[in-house]
Amino acid sequence: MSEFMKYAIQLAQMVKGQTGVNPPVGSVVVKDGRIVGLGAHLKQGEKHAEVQALDMAQDKAKGGTIYISLEPCTHYGSTPPCVNKIIEHGLSKVIYAVKDTTLSSEGDIILEKAGIEVEYQYSEEAFALYEDFFKAKQHKIPEITVKVSTSLDGKQATDSGQSQWITNKAVKQDVYRLRHTHDAVLTGNGTLEADNPQYTTRIQDGKHPIRIILSKRGQIDYSKQIFHDQLSEIWIYTENHELKSPSHHIKIIYLETCNLKSILSDIYQRGVGRLLVEAGPHITSEFLQSNYLDHLIIYYAPKIIGGIGKNQFYQTDNVIDLANAPQFEVISTESIQQNIKMTLRKK
Amino acid sequence: MSEFMKYAIQLAQMVKGQTGVNPPVGSVVVKDGRIVGLGAHLKQGEKHAEVQALDMAQDKAKGGTIYISLEPCTHYGSTPPCVNKIIEHGLSKVIYAVKDTTLSSEGDIILEKAGIEVEYQYSEEAFALYEDFFKAKQHKIPEITVKVSTSLDGKQATDSGQSQWITNKAVKQDVYRLRHTHDAVLTGNGTLEADNPQYTTRIQDGKHPIRIILSKRGQIDYSKQIFHDQLSEIWIYTENHELKSPSHHIKIIYLETCNLKSILSDIYQRGVGRLLVEAGPHITSEFLQSNYLDHLIIYYAPKIIGGIGKNQFYQTDNVIDLANAPQFEVISTESIQQNIKMTLRKK
Repeated sequence: MSEFMKYAIQLAQMVKGQTGVNPPVGSVVVKDGRIVGLGAHLKQGEKHAEVQALDMAQDKAKGGTIYISLEPCTHYGSTPPCVNKIIEHGLSKVIYAVKDTTLSSEGDIILEKAGIEVEYQYSEEAFALYEDFFKAKQHKIPEITVKVSTSLDGKQATDSGQSQWITNKAVKQDVYRLRHTHDAVLTGNGTLEADNPQYTTRIQDGKHPIRIILSKRGQIDYSKQIFHDQLSEIWIYTENHELKSPSHHIKIIYLETCNLKSILSDIYQRGVGRLLVEAGPHITSEFLQSNYLDHLIIYYAPKIIGGIGKNQFYQTDNVIDLANAPQFEVISTESIQQNIKMTLRKK
Repeated sequence: MSEFMKYAIQLAQMVKGQTGVNPPVGSVVVKDGRIVGLGAHLKQGEKHAEVQALDMAQDKAKGGTIYISLEPCTHYGSTPPCVNKIIEHGLSKVIYAVKDTTLSSEGDIILEKAGIEVEYQYSEEAFALYEDFFKAKQHKIPEITVKVSTSLDGKQATDSGQSQWITNKAVKQDVYRLRHTHDAVLTGNGTLEADNPQYTTRIQDGKHPIRIILSKRGQIDYSKQIFHDQLSEIWIYTENHELKSPSHHIKIIYLETCNLKSILSDIYQRGVGRLLVEAGPHITSEFLQSNYLDHLIIYYAPKIIGGIGKNQFYQTDNVIDLANAPQFEVISTESIQQNIKMTLRKK
């Protein structure tokens, strides 16, 4: 991969989790071996990465090359097509790392007709950034990461429900970064009752995710601490007509049937492109069993908890035939101060 | 280090080698946990990183935090002081990673008087980016990297001068990246005679460094291939009054006395902030023996060459007492397809 494509991908990584249902994209404009403009898509509805980079480069873009982590768009959405902007600025070459399979693919033809050379420079790293975005956009549900903190023997808590400090402080910091790079965090009302968590991001200038609570029955205890900060919106999904919101930052979303599909479609329509699931065994198992799952991140503490396993993170009512057990691809393993982080992808 | 400071430093790294005698700087503006602007200093004499990032952010910067890899400037140079721009945009906080020891340090006071909080967030990585810049600016000579390709027994060539293919193709690619991140490459006329090199950068859209040739006597063979591409300027330093340039892109620079100090001062005055030395044993040894050296990069091929060592990369006329032998700090070692890259810093 060329140096400049590496930079475009770095720029895309910087804005991961702040672009809603739009993809994170980075762009670098190069002329005579020098960077003359750089940009990233900062927010859904705002300028695309290419436009930011070309605005910085101005006249200096003429005759240059633009590197983009993703194929430039050809359509009028909230902003005009990026291919037009590229043509107007007189670039001589466009290089992108990933084809946008959700677009009609006439971009290359439009650019080539305007005399601009187009190069497709595949990058595995960039592809990993977009493959779940494409899937999400197609199915109109968010990209989903399920996060689990567990003992080595697969338990989120002891049988009596004790779960605090399973993993260490460094893992907490890592989880804050996960929250920062997702639009929203989803949990169940049971976890609120048991652990009284806040699901905020305690890193400097970090973004607090929207907090989504599932509660079919809608028996919410508004004295829990999550309801008493206003750091980000709270959305409660329920089948209970009667549930009322005590504050303007708490939204009650009534669905006739609260199942994963209906909830996830609704979440996506409201602009959540990346969703992090941090829940107890019940909801975690529901996601792990479904197809609504892209990444699984497991933090293992070097402990064994035993008991009868009331709080194993994966539990099903039926016996699963081993051949049908959900399979994952290992993306990475990492030691975080004596805890092990495993990043996996659903096969 | 915070995530956003990491990004500011990444942006600075992207422009390393294209900012002349100015430092490479990156900047990120954050508001409510989201990046609203990002920038880098792209070229000496042009907008500083902070200004690029604030221009991108516009009104959204108000009340936000700006992360900068280096302390913002307070002086009128080719552009107005960055602290003014920060105050105008109504930022509430400034965070920088490295204090600029070459400035009078009133920046913090000006910002704090304007009601802006200032945080100094030390980063070793950022410091490494600037420490040699500070030294260079103080002494008004470039930051210098000496690059050596050698056998395991310290020879750049056999006694008969055979040196091609000591190191492998992957090392060549790495050297291209080194050239790309330096303003100029320096060599001796002897190396031109022996190896007929071009010192260009063969990476996609890479920047060709200015090529500097030392030749006291000024006996230049203009048929060598370096003189026949016009990919970048060539500067020849000589004590020979009579030497003439055959082409406008070849500059003859006459100095009464061609020693390292006079040459390096002149190079710096002409805008070269980062210099790569790729030369034969004679000039390489002269640099290694001098104080004009910040980094040493050695590529070892897994070969032993033997002979009497006419082309050992470090040779001195006098016996050096071991206690006075130049010492280095090992920054990193890396295996590049069976060749070993060692990056060292002069102590």
